[in-house]
Amino acid sequence: MHTPPAKAELERILRGIVGDSGLVVGRDARARQCDPLRRRPVLAPIIVRPSNTTELSETVSACVELGQTMVIHGGLTGVAGGAYSCEDDVAISLERMTHIEEIDAVGQTATAQAGVPLAALQTAAAAHGLMYPIDLLSQGSATVGGTIATNAGGNRVVRWGMTRRHVLGLEVVLPNGIVLPALNRLVKNNTGYDLKQLFIGSEGTLGIISKAILQLVPLPTSESVMFLAVDDFDNVATLLNLARRLPILSAFEVMWSDYYELMASSDSGRSPLPRGHDFYILVEMLGYNEASDRSTVEDFLQRIHDAELIADVSLATSARQVRDLWRVREGSEVLVANMSPFVSFDISVDLRCVNTCISQIKQALSNRFASSRFVTFGHLGDNNIHMGVNIGPETLELESEIEGVVFSQLAKFGGSISAEHGIGQLKREFLQLCKSPEEIALMRQLKHSLDPVQLLNPAVLFNKRPL
Amino acid sequence: MHTPPAKAELERILRGIVGDSGLVVGRDARARQCDPLRRRPVLAPIIVRPSNTTELSETVSACVELGQTMVIHGGLTGVAGGAYSCEDDVAISLERMTHIEEIDAVGQTATAQAGVPLAALQTAAAAHGLMYPIDLLSQGSATVGGTIATNAGGNRVVRWGMTRRHVLGLEVVLPNGIVLPALNRLVKNNTGYDLKQLFIGSEGTLGIISKAILQLVPLPTSESVMFLAVDDFDNVATLLNLARRLPILSAFEVMWSDYYELMASSDSGRSPLPRGHDFYILVEMLGYNEASDRSTVEDFLQRIHDAELIADVSLATSARQVRDLWRVREGSEVLVANMSPFVSFDISVDLRCVNTCISQIKQALSNRFASSRFVTFGHLGDNNIHMGVNIGPETLELESEIEGVVFSQLAKFGGSISAEHGIGQLKREFLQLCKSPEEIALMRQLKHSLDPVQLLNPAVLFNKRPL
Repeated sequence: MHTPPAKAELERILRGIVGDSGLVVGRDARARQCDPLRRRPVLAPIIVRPSNTTELSETVSACVELGQTMVIHGGLTGVAGGAYSCEDDVAISLERMTHIEEIDAVGQTATAQAGVPLAALQTAAAAHGLMYPIDLLSQGSATVGGTIATNAGGNRVVRWGMTRRHVLGLEVVLPNGIVLPALNRLVKNNTGYDLKQLFIGSEGTLGIISKAILQLVPLPTSESVMFLAVDDFDNVATLLNLARRLPILSAFEVMWSDYYELMASSDSGRSPLPRGHDFYILVEMLGYNEASDRSTVEDFLQRIHDAELIADVSLATSARQVRDLWRVREGSEVLVANMSPFVSFDISVDLRCVNTCISQIKQALSNRFASSRFVTFGHLGDNNIHMGVNIGPETLELESEIEGVVFSQLAKFGGSISAEHGIGQLKREFLQLCKSPEEIALMRQLKHSLDPVQLLNPAVLFNKRPL
Repeated sequence: MHTPPAKAELERILRGIVGDSGLVVGRDARARQCDPLRRRPVLAPIIVRPSNTTELSETVSACVELGQTMVIHGGLTGVAGGAYSCEDDVAISLERMTHIEEIDAVGQTATAQAGVPLAALQTAAAAHGLMYPIDLLSQGSATVGGTIATNAGGNRVVRWGMTRRHVLGLEVVLPNGIVLPALNRLVKNNTGYDLKQLFIGSEGTLGIISKAILQLVPLPTSESVMFLAVDDFDNVATLLNLARRLPILSAFEVMWSDYYELMASSDSGRSPLPRGHDFYILVEMLGYNEASDRSTVEDFLQRIHDAELIADVSLATSARQVRDLWRVREGSEVLVANMSPFVSFDISVDLRCVNTCISQIKQALSNRFASSRFVTFGHLGDNNIHMGVNIGPETLELESEIEGVVFSQLAKFGGSISAEHGIGQLKREFLQLCKSPEEIALMRQLKHSLDPVQLLNPAVLFNKRPL
């Protein structure tokens, strides 16, 4: 238990480190929001914005000396409350650390400060014929550091994996202020513990990522997208199995009929195929050779047609059609307009029982809340299903109860309560549903070893209490 | 500092846990070798062979209670001395834990005990049209647990990555005997620290892997291999850059002329192209569609021919020719026959300076040892170069000095002293060449947190001394 120091003294010390332009205080801090979906102002009275690793390290050291809790801010696009602060905290924002130090076109790597937005990284990479394969809707705001700290996923995990796979090296400011230089740039380097792994996906609880060396891939030059209607989940699974044998497969996005009905009836140009089928699938392929990629696509279509796996198909033949098909899958404004208020789920479950699990979740919700409405869609190739649930006007008041119903069904199937969004502060109470006591004990042991006083993101992952 | 207990009492306790058939003692233990390249008997007087996780956990608990150091044995194919023991140690071998519990053809995963050899895993996977993409020459002996503990690489890292990428979940017996059940099987699961990462590549110093859930890939059905002669390293780099745009690229193996000369002159059928060029490259592509893969290969050949990147080419058109081309790259018996005694290196260096670095290493060795001979080859797409060095009959006596010359040159280029083989006991003294003091301090902190008395693989990675 620490006593917060006089904020005036703290502000004076931090100002000495980062300068006037490095501080946002009082009403200016409170004017900021730290959740992209809910109204949630920054409650920390001081936001420190170091402009380099040295300032960041000094900021952390000063906070440690004063027993001051710190909350880390990346692009503030997380939906699990990882950036929420309280009046006792100081927020540390990486927003001024936006330098892309190098794009290495030979080794196909990028070296970037933590505050670089993914969109800026993509632009820099594309200038060298390269791509960073993490594809998020929020890429204009989501940052290198934030997406590493949360091991972000997105649409193309089925081809390129999650963020963890692309991190070659990290520089991290540890909870004691020491800078850990683990800036490996080699694909293969088996010399001792791969320490960067500790920080990837740990949601800012073990250190603050200040810089990263990332693996890029060649920028694709050919793109094909098809939209399929399918009437049986077994056929969906068979299609996925066949699609996995396409080396250029880059997305396999499944939409349940509840989702597609909403899109197709929204009068927003999101109806590439007739309504009434059970499942719709968007299959994207990204490659590097127009001719052979076209032959791959045609062969695949022929094969799934001959096997009678699909009820209907639409193949995009222009960039505009590609965009239009993706608009169906990325129809968040339709969701917001038609489903609000809704509770959003990001679950993961064994492919063999995905459909049964989803059905049982919906049944359990309908049993408990008669007016339940759902939309269901997701990255099936990665076991990852997103679900929106509205049970009526009191949806948000009953959020925790709705989560309880969903997660207790999910637990029967060994599912995960968060495929990609993370635990943050909002899902802490459910962590024990998908981590064993031994795992939680080891998590706490690591947290205690690196941050014994719990000063760094103290309310994230764990309930704030003596470890 | 522990006092070893009376071995008779220890043996009695361990026999009570694993039974008579679970123990190998005395002369039978000493008769075993624990290094595939050097004569190195097992010095531990007792080898415990638990047959399941419970016995393994009880074995560890018993050793902890007695302050008994433990050395872990997988397939004993490691070349960094990770399995070396001394008379004070007990060896724990996973050799009886060889059960493949499940191949899930839908989710494309395997669940296997740690002692399963990779070849057995491959056979089981192939029966379901699947493949485990780690391809090692030692796959008949190397085990699931050992390759995870050392994050094994191999020939196909350029396509599928190292072992770390394929591990979905682990069961680990911690250094205190507690079983950590982290048996995730989901591709996406962002719920707290990804604890399995801690054990992958930590060479058995933080826990004993008892079971793993592994990600498989569809078994390729089409295979193409070409052998290229190239006369300039810039062309090699350009070729790699082009090859990376082939979605079916699965190996890009470069042989320097010193290596190829040895193979081609060995009278062992390893001479697919005329001698005299500077570099030879084996390019392998594995895919799932004969027709489109053939078109990809032909298009690539046309392209690199038009760009005048290659001096000569041989394309395998039968399974036998494919095998013959791979025999050139995997000519270890020629190396042993012509280069012995030699010191073997497994280094990793930034692609932009690979060739300069290799030249400077050879120059420095030649300056120091007039009769130096080299062979140089490796997985260039992964920055990973293997090198064999013979400086005359006294090569092995001067091993440490030879390593010093190589590693001090390598350090100038920020290279890694071990791309895939690991540190073990044999490279400990050089660890500080490629890890910063802060990294080594954090490694020690983690070791101390999990294994405070240093009972598990106590001489691996770290010099055995109070942490």
